[in-house]
Amino acid sequence: MKFGILGAGFIAAVMADTLCRMAQQGETGAELYAVAARDIGRARAFAAEHNVPKAYGSYEEMLRDPAVEVVYIATPHSLHYRHIKLCADHGKHILCEKPFTVSARQAEDALRYAQARGVLVTEAIWTRYQPMRRIIREAVESGKIGEPRLLTANLGYEMTGKQRIILPELAGGALLDVGLYPLHFAEMVFGRPDEVRGLCTKNTHGVDMTDCITLTWKDGRVANLTAAANAVSDRYGVIYGTKGYLMVDNINNPQGLRMVDDTGRLIEEIACPPQLTGYEYEVRETVDCIRRGLPECPSMPHRETVHMMEQMDHLRAQMGIRYPCEETDDPA
Amino acid sequence: MKFGILGAGFIAAVMADTLCRMAQQGETGAELYAVAARDIGRARAFAAEHNVPKAYGSYEEMLRDPAVEVVYIATPHSLHYRHIKLCADHGKHILCEKPFTVSARQAEDALRYAQARGVLVTEAIWTRYQPMRRIIREAVESGKIGEPRLLTANLGYEMTGKQRIILPELAGGALLDVGLYPLHFAEMVFGRPDEVRGLCTKNTHGVDMTDCITLTWKDGRVANLTAAANAVSDRYGVIYGTKGYLMVDNINNPQGLRMVDDTGRLIEEIACPPQLTGYEYEVRETVDCIRRGLPECPSMPHRETVHMMEQMDHLRAQMGIRYPCEETDDPA
Repeated sequence: MKFGILGAGFIAAVMADTLCRMAQQGETGAELYAVAARDIGRARAFAAEHNVPKAYGSYEEMLRDPAVEVVYIATPHSLHYRHIKLCADHGKHILCEKPFTVSARQAEDALRYAQARGVLVTEAIWTRYQPMRRIIREAVESGKIGEPRLLTANLGYEMTGKQRIILPELAGGALLDVGLYPLHFAEMVFGRPDEVRGLCTKNTHGVDMTDCITLTWKDGRVANLTAAANAVSDRYGVIYGTKGYLMVDNINNPQGLRMVDDTGRLIEEIACPPQLTGYEYEVRETVDCIRRGLPECPSMPHRETVHMMEQMDHLRAQMGIRYPCEETDDPA
Repeated sequence: MKFGILGAGFIAAVMADTLCRMAQQGETGAELYAVAARDIGRARAFAAEHNVPKAYGSYEEMLRDPAVEVVYIATPHSLHYRHIKLCADHGKHILCEKPFTVSARQAEDALRYAQARGVLVTEAIWTRYQPMRRIIREAVESGKIGEPRLLTANLGYEMTGKQRIILPELAGGALLDVGLYPLHFAEMVFGRPDEVRGLCTKNTHGVDMTDCITLTWKDGRVANLTAAANAVSDRYGVIYGTKGYLMVDNINNPQGLRMVDDTGRLIEEIACPPQLTGYEYEVRETVDCIRRGLPECPSMPHRETVHMMEQMDHLRAQMGIRYPCEETDDPA
């Protein structure tokens, strides 16, 4: 199945690399076929560097190529809504980088739009598709740390030099870029919370640089989450139980987990199964679901994409953050 | 200087052990002299086990012994207010376990009472007196992790079998027992916050089993803290900077710290200087300050004790938790 990559930035390069490695190891389901950038020079340079057969100097041009079957949207998230619709208009299946859009309203609208055009669309939140998701859940359910009661997770990078992070007109802030990882981590382990509460500190442009988010469940479970766009974090996710705790190394791409008992003794250590880049799982599932004629992927159903955008909408409302690009029906 | 221990529980035993070890290594400033319990059998058993010369079957009896110079209050915290006044009535200097009292009002009243009677009183929050406090601060100030922006810390134990933890009439809950450690950790590193916000989940008796606490500073710094009385935690404190992070192993008795750069590489590791039990620092400072005729210890001034109780009062107000024993002027 031929992939076109829409955008030629950092994430686009990781996806190109993933598709190359998949081919190198003999996987034939997904094929790196084209790349499109707004500038043909940039597209050609990307194609040369990453062995992409076709390079296009506009997104539409690539989308008009009938050979392209699936598009990986690798543009900044403020453009996702517009680009999902554009791909759907051209009948292309869609694997769209996280966050899916900048608001639940945009997400619902884009999903409806794509479904009406009969294409599969799925959010490329890689941790949902990875085998560590199941491994973490099974470790919690094994009872080795007792009954899980509390969870903490954090993700932070110093990104204050990036326009897309610091400006409201690009839907900047910590929440949509990194905050969604602790949110996904918490909900993958504990399920949907009954309440979400958050506060943040803002930069001079009025978007969140540090977020503290608390999820609560009626049965007393709690998740306390932290995200930062202006500082480096340890990226740990920890689940606290009645008999010990479980520590996940890097919630942004789980590399393993350790279970520790209440005396501090290591009970068990589980490493991440070997991976190419970690993106191969979302690619495989996307291809498989397209082949089966499904409109969505089971690892990240549409209702879940909308729900996560709703959670971030709720949090932004509490934090007093609105993006100019969410104000119009068509934020293009 | 002769110490009397008021109470004969777990913490009393740790203090007895500390004083024994200090004597064994030739320190002569603090001398383990007496123990008092409400039951003479229990006091005698404790004295026999921990080599305490004198055992008393009532607190007052021990306090009437003119040889006792300093009292270490090791009773449950719902009784601290009463016992601080009792010790002051007998002209004894006081090292009182944390939390100092159950409310700021009790703390202020008890401090005034003790000061009027010319005795030194200090809160035994051991992490404030330990050398790791200075070592952590110097590591942050070294600039190796860049500018500090965010902090997380947690402490949790499964203690739902303990009456003093689960009952409001004993001023139970996670906050006063374990939550104060992340609070102290955050304020020792970042200073006093401009705002404190918290929420919790409660047990069937209405006290907090899990707390999520967020401190914010006007300059944008944030501390996101977690405490649990019903689950085991990793006890890490982490300071996130622009160039890396600093991880403190066990905020309840720091055993060392690691600084990591933004690529995940270990920059520096600092171990805790050798310690007896970790309580020796508060003992040494207490003895030293009494000798110098001071009313308080510089590591934990009275204003700081009141401030920390105020923070917990604010948090309990937000959480909707009141203890019956804080309702009266004299909660005895």
